[in-house]
Amino acid sequence: MPPAPLPPEVLEFIRRPNPAVIASLRPDGSPHSVATWYDWEEDGHVLLNMDESRLRLRFMRRDPRVALTALDDEDWGRQVSLFGRIVRIEKDAELEDIDRLAVRYTGAPFRRRDARRYSAWMNVEAWHGWEGSEPWPRL
Amino acid sequence: MPPAPLPPEVLEFIRRPNPAVIASLRPDGSPHSVATWYDWEEDGHVLLNMDESRLRLRFMRRDPRVALTALDDEDWGRQVSLFGRIVRIEKDAELEDIDRLAVRYTGAPFRRRDARRYSAWMNVEAWHGWEGSEPWPRL
Repeated sequence: MPPAPLPPEVLEFIRRPNPAVIASLRPDGSPHSVATWYDWEEDGHVLLNMDESRLRLRFMRRDPRVALTALDDEDWGRQVSLFGRIVRIEKDAELEDIDRLAVRYTGAPFRRRDARRYSAWMNVEAWHGWEGSEPWPRL
Repeated sequence: MPPAPLPPEVLEFIRRPNPAVIASLRPDGSPHSVATWYDWEEDGHVLLNMDESRLRLRFMRRDPRVALTALDDEDWGRQVSLFGRIVRIEKDAELEDIDRLAVRYTGAPFRRRDARRYSAWMNVEAWHGWEGSEPWPRL
């Protein structure tokens, strides 16, 4: 699996508002997965954001290892997975981060203004990309 | 998280050829994730199929715990995740299982007739569903 940093084609892909699934680890070590919004930070981190009630917020605090698979919205045979660790979790008190994600994915700010949200940043250590049954991009 | 069996609305959703991501566990316990085809077996198992070169085939043999998140193809805000274990892995010598998946997802049999493929069956132990930021379906 290639290590970070991401090559230009992968960066261009990951910057799009793709459908994505985040995998984290339950306390017993089994995998948990759920669809998620994300955004790419130009410092090499991925922004995630969760309601304070979400199980995965607890899971990430306990074991920071995560994987994110992003699918091409038009043809999900093209996909990129990122592997790494959550390196920071912070309360999104002003809903700035969830607004940024909501605008990115829906074009409008987050609706629930009384939501209690947390942001988490994943440091990307490695990645892999596939298109159909071939590695993508060809490096 | 609700235990199996899946309620009718979830079964109806899971039977569709949805985009999906499978999460498994690396030897160091960290999560691995990748997009996948799947099919529902009416005995409560999920069929998966992989080229023999795929890392996750090794991972599943070592630790059978997996999670599968399926996304609604038209609005991926609706999603269902299944949690469980790989209970059987068999060589797909005649490519029957990968053909079944290829027809389900593409309408045509699998192209590479010299492929070496393996099928794996996941026993579903629990599930969760979301639509937007609410649990789905309302039980």
